[in-house]
Amino acid sequence: MGDLKFVKKFQVKEGFFGRYEKLVKDVVLPYQERALNDQIEGAEKSHCIENFRMAAQKIKTGRCDGEFYGMVFQDSDVAKWLEGVAYSLSQNPDTELEKRCDEIIELIGEAQQEDGYLNTYFTVKEPDKRWTNLQEAHELYCAGHMIEAAAAYAECTGKTRLLEIMCRMADHIYRRFVEEGAEGYPGHPEIELALMRLYRSTGKERYKELALHFINVRGVNSDYYSQEKARRNWSVWDADPADKEYTQSAVPVRQQEKATGHAVRAVYLYTGMADAAKETGDAQLAKACDTLWNNITQHRMYVTGGIGSAYEGEAFTKDDHLPNDTAYAETCAAIGLIFFSNKMLYLARNGKYADVMERALYNCVLAGMQLDGTKFFYVNPLEVLPGISGEAKTHKHALPVRPKWFACACCPPNVARLLTSVAEYAWHIEADTLFSNLFIAGTLDLTDHMGGRISLQTAYPYDHKITYHFEPKKETMPVALAVRIPGWSKETKIRVNGRTADCEIRDGYAYLRGDFGADDVVEVELDLSVRKVYTNSRVAANTGRVALQRGPLIYCAEGVDNGGDVLSLSLKKDGKVEVSEYLPEKLYGIQELYAEGFRETVSEELYSYNAPQTEPCQVTFIPYYTWGNRGLNQMRVWMPEKN
Amino acid sequence: MGDLKFVKKFQVKEGFFGRYEKLVKDVVLPYQERALNDQIEGAEKSHCIENFRMAAQKIKTGRCDGEFYGMVFQDSDVAKWLEGVAYSLSQNPDTELEKRCDEIIELIGEAQQEDGYLNTYFTVKEPDKRWTNLQEAHELYCAGHMIEAAAAYAECTGKTRLLEIMCRMADHIYRRFVEEGAEGYPGHPEIELALMRLYRSTGKERYKELALHFINVRGVNSDYYSQEKARRNWSVWDADPADKEYTQSAVPVRQQEKATGHAVRAVYLYTGMADAAKETGDAQLAKACDTLWNNITQHRMYVTGGIGSAYEGEAFTKDDHLPNDTAYAETCAAIGLIFFSNKMLYLARNGKYADVMERALYNCVLAGMQLDGTKFFYVNPLEVLPGISGEAKTHKHALPVRPKWFACACCPPNVARLLTSVAEYAWHIEADTLFSNLFIAGTLDLTDHMGGRISLQTAYPYDHKITYHFEPKKETMPVALAVRIPGWSKETKIRVNGRTADCEIRDGYAYLRGDFGADDVVEVELDLSVRKVYTNSRVAANTGRVALQRGPLIYCAEGVDNGGDVLSLSLKKDGKVEVSEYLPEKLYGIQELYAEGFRETVSEELYSYNAPQTEPCQVTFIPYYTWGNRGLNQMRVWMPEKN
Repeated sequence: MGDLKFVKKFQVKEGFFGRYEKLVKDVVLPYQERALNDQIEGAEKSHCIENFRMAAQKIKTGRCDGEFYGMVFQDSDVAKWLEGVAYSLSQNPDTELEKRCDEIIELIGEAQQEDGYLNTYFTVKEPDKRWTNLQEAHELYCAGHMIEAAAAYAECTGKTRLLEIMCRMADHIYRRFVEEGAEGYPGHPEIELALMRLYRSTGKERYKELALHFINVRGVNSDYYSQEKARRNWSVWDADPADKEYTQSAVPVRQQEKATGHAVRAVYLYTGMADAAKETGDAQLAKACDTLWNNITQHRMYVTGGIGSAYEGEAFTKDDHLPNDTAYAETCAAIGLIFFSNKMLYLARNGKYADVMERALYNCVLAGMQLDGTKFFYVNPLEVLPGISGEAKTHKHALPVRPKWFACACCPPNVARLLTSVAEYAWHIEADTLFSNLFIAGTLDLTDHMGGRISLQTAYPYDHKITYHFEPKKETMPVALAVRIPGWSKETKIRVNGRTADCEIRDGYAYLRGDFGADDVVEVELDLSVRKVYTNSRVAANTGRVALQRGPLIYCAEGVDNGGDVLSLSLKKDGKVEVSEYLPEKLYGIQELYAEGFRETVSEELYSYNAPQTEPCQVTFIPYYTWGNRGLNQMRVWMPEKN
Repeated sequence: MGDLKFVKKFQVKEGFFGRYEKLVKDVVLPYQERALNDQIEGAEKSHCIENFRMAAQKIKTGRCDGEFYGMVFQDSDVAKWLEGVAYSLSQNPDTELEKRCDEIIELIGEAQQEDGYLNTYFTVKEPDKRWTNLQEAHELYCAGHMIEAAAAYAECTGKTRLLEIMCRMADHIYRRFVEEGAEGYPGHPEIELALMRLYRSTGKERYKELALHFINVRGVNSDYYSQEKARRNWSVWDADPADKEYTQSAVPVRQQEKATGHAVRAVYLYTGMADAAKETGDAQLAKACDTLWNNITQHRMYVTGGIGSAYEGEAFTKDDHLPNDTAYAETCAAIGLIFFSNKMLYLARNGKYADVMERALYNCVLAGMQLDGTKFFYVNPLEVLPGISGEAKTHKHALPVRPKWFACACCPPNVARLLTSVAEYAWHIEADTLFSNLFIAGTLDLTDHMGGRISLQTAYPYDHKITYHFEPKKETMPVALAVRIPGWSKETKIRVNGRTADCEIRDGYAYLRGDFGADDVVEVELDLSVRKVYTNSRVAANTGRVALQRGPLIYCAEGVDNGGDVLSLSLKKDGKVEVSEYLPEKLYGIQELYAEGFRETVSEELYSYNAPQTEPCQVTFIPYYTWGNRGLNQMRVWMPEKN
């Protein structure tokens, strides 16, 4: 069966994401490989591989030279890298790279204990403390990431060594938490979604059962972390077990109604829940997922798809609290929202889930990486104020330019594994229907399903035209295609061979069928008119303000394009917005927007009894994902609107 | 000579501040007296008096029962209360209260060590550690407050016992830091301004010298706190000595150009600096004060006169960073800004300093106290979002309703001592001229200066008319009067006996002279037209927004007057604002404003491609100082403006 449906089958060589695939392969993954091996001069030590080497030595000889180094979840960096490499290898075979991966996997196997337990922190440093601190110690989290890597590696390379290792670890966990009845649930959810993958990769029911176990016990004994803390005499960072909202454990998951706490943990949990709900048909669990997804997207999500409003705990805060300049909006959390929305789309076929995937992908996630792939943002604010952003005590986290990416290792490999597996989100198959969720150019091999290949050609998101071509093995191939109609597209045209297609529009998808041959073409024309976006007035920060969107892209104004100052700018209500031609040389190829607006004359006085003098002007906007690539300057997504 | 010029001479029995004087006398000071004596059930223990009792016992017997309790600066609570009581006694003699004060003062005397040292924390708890931790331990701060109390008590009651005690303490400090050359300067400035008072109360040059010493050495060795920390092996709250901006010690004070760090400490320091600059004629010091005052009022002050944008460190942050909902804007900091501005006004006679005093007094400071005098705000936000304010991790400090005031004891007695000494800010005398800075109704005895009394009659800030009447001892009295022309008054009329006065307008004051008898009257008519206020677009939070001001009062809209929701409201550009009649029953007597505006129809969707539907409506505003007196609800000062 397998978990990956499209990564191996969808070749992304060109277009908007073709550039990103290549960037990840050529820049991001190699850089991280050297980082994991501590081969980058001047960079913070990773020690990841070295930790595994020491654990292997200790298992072999009973002792090891050197000391564990890094975060308690350091192992997960290797896992996420391996997962990204696996996806990349399926697109770009590389025997040398694969050989190096195989060696690392062998090392991981040697670091596994007799009973299946695998975690270098505990094996090397704290052998007596394993499983005593689920709230902080990330054992299940690390296991989850390595399980994902194992499933990905097996499916992309056909090599099952890591899968076997991780089945042994999963069996160890199953024994402890199911058979022996040990209490507890992970402080950082991740293993739930990973076990669902492992279940699909191996077909073994016990992994689904284990995933459901962790989902079902969560919050039932909501005092678990407090009890655990009372029993143990050590701590990683002295997290407060009484803050149950923070750990998504105040009530059982089926009763949870608000997305709370650490944003990445929350959406990883909900991803596992949605996957399990689909797999088991558990209507109550599905309902909880729906409630939580609605709470996020209607009360706790930035227009960029960023989630988690506060640096404090990298967390969700309260409904309708979406400050722009102090936003956390972690890149990883937006990636998690894509995971969650993707599973929701399997659970309930509705284009709104794909809309949110696309919103997060093209805006918050892509903004997380410098356009040249060398630097990363963890935090993705919607307003940058030089002199304040990154400098005021309240804004230390909201850096105005991307730092070098190797200081911490969580977001960069997450971006890498998402971009190399974007096929899984772009395409779904359900029953006999192929769902085209995201319009990513490439060729999809559906020989097994529909007797041929389908290629999607487009310059999207900068062009409104998407065409599907067919390469049947025989004369024609039977195709059932559901094309997403994005929520932002006012008018969408679908044609088959130039004629309006006979298709049914339902819940954000256009369903069409046909037997198509090599000369047939399905054309989709989206409406890429610029849309002005307004926020509900419940969100205090955005009252009286407007943002610009074109297609999936949220735009922003940077100082560098606007005479150095965007704070004195406002947009004209009902004013025109022009779209530039495609500028291949600017920011790796974009279209700018030029909006009718006003510029205030800025005086010296802080407060004035005179309304500011304004002059009509043109305001230049660039896509949000390209901000911060030209040095320190002001940036603003939401701009005041005036007559 | 004496430091107090007006407190004893200005009777405030009626009008706007008459109510506040009575409230402080009848409610605030008695409540605090019981708190200091731990007589309030259910309230947090103060232990202040008890700490002094133990210190006295220890000095007498070498040991004491019980343990020191409270903050390291707990002594200052007694000091600030005594200071407020002294002012109040000068207006409202009360032999019983005065007797109780005398007893406390005796106790304070008994708690003083042989060498003059006075501080119960160190005497009771850490006798070996005195003077080892200037950064955190507040010894000089507590001494400063007690010196202020001593000066006030001596001048208001004629009793010099506390003054003698504090001279001994000041002498002790002088010996240590001047004669013996001990290094260091106070972590929490206050003693500088207090020593200037002590100098004026006693005429002793050494106190001025000591004040100048602390001002002059500050920041010269900018590593002092780090060196001190390296020497000591204890800490109060592990403050970072390397954060020199926070402690206003990065450079010598004459080189400081930005108001940084803990806002109260900063303005207390600047107050002492400005006082010393005036006293010594030090032009360089005066220039630094001018630069700092401009930096605050042009880049770091809320429209309410609140200062300190961030909870983190109760501190100034960066230029033009003035968030409304997460503001700290501590009541004490606004009081300190009044102190500083008052000294600036002595240093350079310009109405702008009085404008800022008035802005802070009528808005931030008065908002700090519940209208019934029973509860207090430390934090004075300009926007309140129920569900977020006081609840989100980023907003824990920004309480939406006033807590009971006894949990911490810094702001309430500061409000009390300010309101009971408001005469010092309302009036100045320089050369032969009486300056009328603030229009506070009452009668001023100027027999010594001008041969009679002057009474100011007004219902200001709710009436625009201010009249000065004269009660000469002889037939007439020679009066040189300078009336402040507020910056917000577009047109100000000044008449003598009904005729336009012959006066010179200079730097925000109208100067007039005359020999006035009992039938003469000087009338001032201010322009109380409602003013719309705009913020410089450098301040991101307020772009596109407008606030309303009438006279000195900044207004705000609360949900309770506006159908529960103010976030969906905007004001009409160039729209009319009506002023209600005086409503004596509402919020202890106010005038409301009714502004032409719009209300958005609030839908469910978080983001929409449709501009919100709006309908014309009337928006009701109340004075900012009255907000939060009617339970939990939305509040907003800065409102979007639309055509």
